[in-house]
Amino acid sequence: MLRVGVIGTGMIGEDHVRRLTSTLSGCRVSAVTDVDAERARAVADVAPGARVHDSGEDLVRDGEVDAVVVASWGATHEQYVLACLAAGKPVFCEKPLAPSAKECLRIVEAEAAIGRRMVQVGFMRRYDTAFAQLKRAVDAGTIGAPLLVHCAHRNASVPGHFVADMAITDSAVHEFDIVRWLLDDEIVAVRVLKPRANGHGRDVQDPLLILLETAGGVLIDVETSVNIQYGYDIRAEVVGESGTVELPQAGNVVVRQSGGVTALIAMDWRDRFRQAYDVELQAWVDAAAKGGATGPTSWDGYVATTISEAAVWSMGTGSRVPIKLEDRPVLYAVS
Amino acid sequence: MLRVGVIGTGMIGEDHVRRLTSTLSGCRVSAVTDVDAERARAVADVAPGARVHDSGEDLVRDGEVDAVVVASWGATHEQYVLACLAAGKPVFCEKPLAPSAKECLRIVEAEAAIGRRMVQVGFMRRYDTAFAQLKRAVDAGTIGAPLLVHCAHRNASVPGHFVADMAITDSAVHEFDIVRWLLDDEIVAVRVLKPRANGHGRDVQDPLLILLETAGGVLIDVETSVNIQYGYDIRAEVVGESGTVELPQAGNVVVRQSGGVTALIAMDWRDRFRQAYDVELQAWVDAAAKGGATGPTSWDGYVATTISEAAVWSMGTGSRVPIKLEDRPVLYAVS
Amino acid sequence: MLRVGVIGTGMIGEDHVRRLTSTLSGCRVSAVTDVDAERARAVADVAPGARVHDSGEDLVRDGEVDAVVVASWGATHEQYVLACLAAGKPVFCEKPLAPSAKECLRIVEAEAAIGRRMVQVGFMRRYDTAFAQLKRAVDAGTIGAPLLVHCAHRNASVPGHFVADMAITDSAVHEFDIVRWLLDDEIVAVRVLKPRANGHGRDVQDPLLILLETAGGVLIDVETSVNIQYGYDIRAEVVGESGTVELPQAGNVVVRQSGGVTALIAMDWRDRFRQAYDVELQAWVDAAAKGGATGPTSWDGYVATTISEAAVWSMGTGSRVPIKLEDRPVLYAVS
Amino acid sequence: MLRVGVIGTGMIGEDHVRRLTSTLSGCRVSAVTDVDAERARAVADVAPGARVHDSGEDLVRDGEVDAVVVASWGATHEQYVLACLAAGKPVFCEKPLAPSAKECLRIVEAEAAIGRRMVQVGFMRRYDTAFAQLKRAVDAGTIGAPLLVHCAHRNASVPGHFVADMAITDSAVHEFDIVRWLLDDEIVAVRVLKPRANGHGRDVQDPLLILLETAGGVLIDVETSVNIQYGYDIRAEVVGESGTVELPQAGNVVVRQSGGVTALIAMDWRDRFRQAYDVELQAWVDAAAKGGATGPTSWDGYVATTISEAAVWSMGTGSRVPIKLEDRPVLYAVS
Ligand SMILES: [Mg+2]
Ligand SMILES: [Mg+2]
Ligand SMILES: [Mg+2]
Ligand SMILES: [Mg+2]
Repeated sequence: MLRVGVIGTGMIGEDHVRRLTSTLSGCRVSAVTDVDAERARAVADVAPGARVHDSGEDLVRDGEVDAVVVASWGATHEQYVLACLAAGKPVFCEKPLAPSAKECLRIVEAEAAIGRRMVQVGFMRRYDTAFAQLKRAVDAGTIGAPLLVHCAHRNASVPGHFVADMAITDSAVHEFDIVRWLLDDEIVAVRVLKPRANGHGRDVQDPLLILLETAGGVLIDVETSVNIQYGYDIRAEVVGESGTVELPQAGNVVVRQSGGVTALIAMDWRDRFRQAYDVELQAWVDAAAKGGATGPTSWDGYVATTISEAAVWSMGTGSRVPIKLEDRPVLYAVS
Repeated sequence: MLRVGVIGTGMIGEDHVRRLTSTLSGCRVSAVTDVDAERARAVADVAPGARVHDSGEDLVRDGEVDAVVVASWGATHEQYVLACLAAGKPVFCEKPLAPSAKECLRIVEAEAAIGRRMVQVGFMRRYDTAFAQLKRAVDAGTIGAPLLVHCAHRNASVPGHFVADMAITDSAVHEFDIVRWLLDDEIVAVRVLKPRANGHGRDVQDPLLILLETAGGVLIDVETSVNIQYGYDIRAEVVGESGTVELPQAGNVVVRQSGGVTALIAMDWRDRFRQAYDVELQAWVDAAAKGGATGPTSWDGYVATTISEAAVWSMGTGSRVPIKLEDRPVLYAVS
Repeated sequence: MLRVGVIGTGMIGEDHVRRLTSTLSGCRVSAVTDVDAERARAVADVAPGARVHDSGEDLVRDGEVDAVVVASWGATHEQYVLACLAAGKPVFCEKPLAPSAKECLRIVEAEAAIGRRMVQVGFMRRYDTAFAQLKRAVDAGTIGAPLLVHCAHRNASVPGHFVADMAITDSAVHEFDIVRWLLDDEIVAVRVLKPRANGHGRDVQDPLLILLETAGGVLIDVETSVNIQYGYDIRAEVVGESGTVELPQAGNVVVRQSGGVTALIAMDWRDRFRQAYDVELQAWVDAAAKGGATGPTSWDGYVATTISEAAVWSMGTGSRVPIKLEDRPVLYAVS
Repeated sequence: MLRVGVIGTGMIGEDHVRRLTSTLSGCRVSAVTDVDAERARAVADVAPGARVHDSGEDLVRDGEVDAVVVASWGATHEQYVLACLAAGKPVFCEKPLAPSAKECLRIVEAEAAIGRRMVQVGFMRRYDTAFAQLKRAVDAGTIGAPLLVHCAHRNASVPGHFVADMAITDSAVHEFDIVRWLLDDEIVAVRVLKPRANGHGRDVQDPLLILLETAGGVLIDVETSVNIQYGYDIRAEVVGESGTVELPQAGNVVVRQSGGVTALIAMDWRDRFRQAYDVELQAWVDAAAKGGATGPTSWDGYVATTISEAAVWSMGTGSRVPIKLEDRPVLYAVS
């Protein structure tokens, strides 16, 4: 029975506490903490026997904590993940691994120095059934070699504190990771184009069209629309030499009503990926119980953030920005 | 240039006048008539040079009429079709060929006595691209031998004069014809089941579930819903030994809006089958120009009406009603 | 931590052992048994600490078994479920509850005598996301009052020991349960129609068209096809007064290839309902941990088997068979 | 009865001869010509009474020719269209209007000098039902102001003489025209990106990703894939402020077979747009019968070719190429 401590009990942290307590196998939440102590106490009530700590560092030190979920504000990720590594405790860190490539790199170096995987980054899409099918079809050669990928990442609306960069750092970062994984290929350049702005987006430049190039010559276009009103919708089509493979419409019931045949779409992203979050965290629990980690690595987290930084730069300048990565430690060598 | 006379200039008759005048090749409307003389005159204005007759018989006799479209009230079909046969003029008769099997049979006998095809019945679905593809797939053995057919025939609403029988005689009669044609098989029995009635249907028993059995052992279920509000929707799926083949959703644009992915559906049946009507009537024009007829025969019209009569009987009694057909004249032998 | 004993470690029993061990929260498998002792031992290896019993009765008596899953051959269900009730242990029994209504009734009576729910029957569809959405749409009045339901239950193929009745007792029994649940209405009659047989089915009469009538006047048609080759496919459309609501195509990726746009379909039913099985059994674990049961009741199991018996009778005779139920104990009163 | 002369009786020219002869209303083919005289004679046989001319100029002069269809090799378009204008005869010219903007401009100037429309350019998509629905939805404000358009133009394969430019000048030129029309907006810049090449394309750089910017700030991405094997597929999705609207899958039957639910796709572009070609040419016949023209103008043809030239330039250099247009004659003022 893995005893998990959860740092950060906001919306996603609370979801993970419930998941670890009531849904997953082989784990329980033994400790929580949050900058908002009252909120931490409220969430602790969901997890029988969970104690509340004053700080993430205290939680990491707790002898009844075998492994840690970091779901706090991005700016604090580095310190908590490094604390876990120092304590030799497996850690699941929500995406992005850290807001800057520099911070991510320090995590990579710390883990590489240990010499075995301790960190899993929360890119849950890799655990989604539909994305897994997409990868399987690509890997099986169903469509020949991949040449293009068309993606769209659409949110019905975003909260008031949303700023333009976040369409890259919070939204498109999922695409940055997933296309690397889908294609087993590395992104070498990015360019961000800005069409006319959506009137629902106040001052935010929305949508964006982000173009990625891979080392292997694949071109990827990613639409991010963060105020599109109609729902939360994730689309991806890989175009190959002899065909394409595409995510399905999220499989909801079909209503015939008022002049239309309508497949319902989720408004909330958590509904779309609920099962992926379960599978993702179960995979982490299973690996952490053996002292290690699986799935998206610190290196993946570092690369995704590096691409985000380049994309933010491109959004400002309009130019094509090449991606420069540090040398990849052998720990993260592609198998 | 085939000179066509049109008897009956109601909604469908007027459509045919426009089609013959402005859309089809090798024809023009030279004469029209209607019980409502004023309406006949108004419609004649659409067709340059068309004269208006006082009666269908006058129109048939007109030396400037080479061939006739009968689109008048069903009860008058027999007299006008027989007049055309007597005059040796090819005739296109809207479905049903006649309201009773007895009337249809007199047409069959008159045409059989002539010994060559002169009559085409207006079962336009046979000319619809999607139905043609359905038949092609069945005939090609794509799904193995057909075993079941599931059909639905849905109208958003029906006019105030609609009575329960018409869900059979006006709506399901299309399915009676099309499954015979799809399967190259004959209907041998019918049973009509009545679920709880739709509140939008006033006194009309709606919907119905109609079960057909063929000589070859295929079972067909047909839902007729004549007040289903949401649109005009025709569906059919043929279930075979190794798969199924199904009509597509009518191919309208797909709107993502307000929590749904919606394929628009026609409210009006004329939109759904507009192209089929064009192809159907062009086929008739081309055959009539050579003095003959093609497509659905008088015999097909007689059989469809016979099934309608049995179905109406079953609706009253709830029992399974076998279909008894007269001997098929050699003129209508299956090729 | 609920300690679960599993009786029957065939395909579905083994699935449940893995699920209880590696996927679900708050439970572990403490004991297993099977008529095939070797198989029981092999499956026990999947569940650390599980002991192997010689008989179901031994397992039920085991002090380290808090609750029981019955996944053995249907003919043994009654004895094991009654043993659990006698021992005061919550029990999850795979469908059907028992092969005959008489056996089911004895379980109902035994549970009713205890006066609180102890039994959950394995109708997993009620826990499927898409079926849940279907029910939510119907209950919300999205389509007005339901009038008709069209269902299809298709298996690619069935094993050699399959006999014709099993299309009813093993397959359509799922539809019998789910339409009662969807409509909150009771089945009052059934009729089974037999079309021409599928050549892939050897001597088995396949497919069937099963017609159900509810007390409220809803008509349901269920196609069962057990040798349809192309895949495992479950379809349902509820037709209401102003529209319809339909299960989605199982949400697999879409491949454009070789002249077609193809949504992949599962060949194996376990893939289609994998998540439903997880949710179903977690619900049981959570209720059993409190000493009770939730979801489909013994009464539901009894009714489903009663309808199966009537349907088998109708398949033999071709006649409409009314459903007669015993009085419903107050324990199972509709809330 | 409009007497039409057809210059060029290759594949598309022959199609038009058949269409004018057997499908459309109010016209017949009175003359044909082709560089391959034998082919011209063979095609003339399809059109009763059509004579064969030695040259396009002869055909234009023919007193029995009221209006002309130019379906010859692109390099000859200018001379034949100018000949028609000189003779005062309405002309339908297949796309592109001419291979270079300079040639197109001479046509524009000649027509503008006459002061009324005489030329219709063969951008048939504007007459396609689905594209018309797309425009109607955009114009109705269904999705708010348009911000992005995603297009794909895919051919199963291309003939041996195909060179890389043709993916722009022959394929994407349709998208250049249709997005201008859809958005009522002008293209101001183009950039062509080249991913890794499809192995099926021999030396041809295939696919391309073409980016267009409009005066109003809309960004359009167009994938051209000319060797994608699986079929002919045209896709377009307009992304607006509150939703999107998308072309349907071409509405073919759906086959359930071998592990998939497959909507069939045309291999041949003529199947996809057959009806659009009919409607397009009927519109021309109707306008030509009155001495004028409708639909896509010479100006539209000039603009499309100008964008093609810029795109070809960009393909060579990789840079963003601004579009510079001459002043628009008042004849082509937007109404
Ligand atoms: Mg995540
Ligand atoms: Mg008709
Ligand atoms: Mg079950
Ligand atoms: Mg064209």
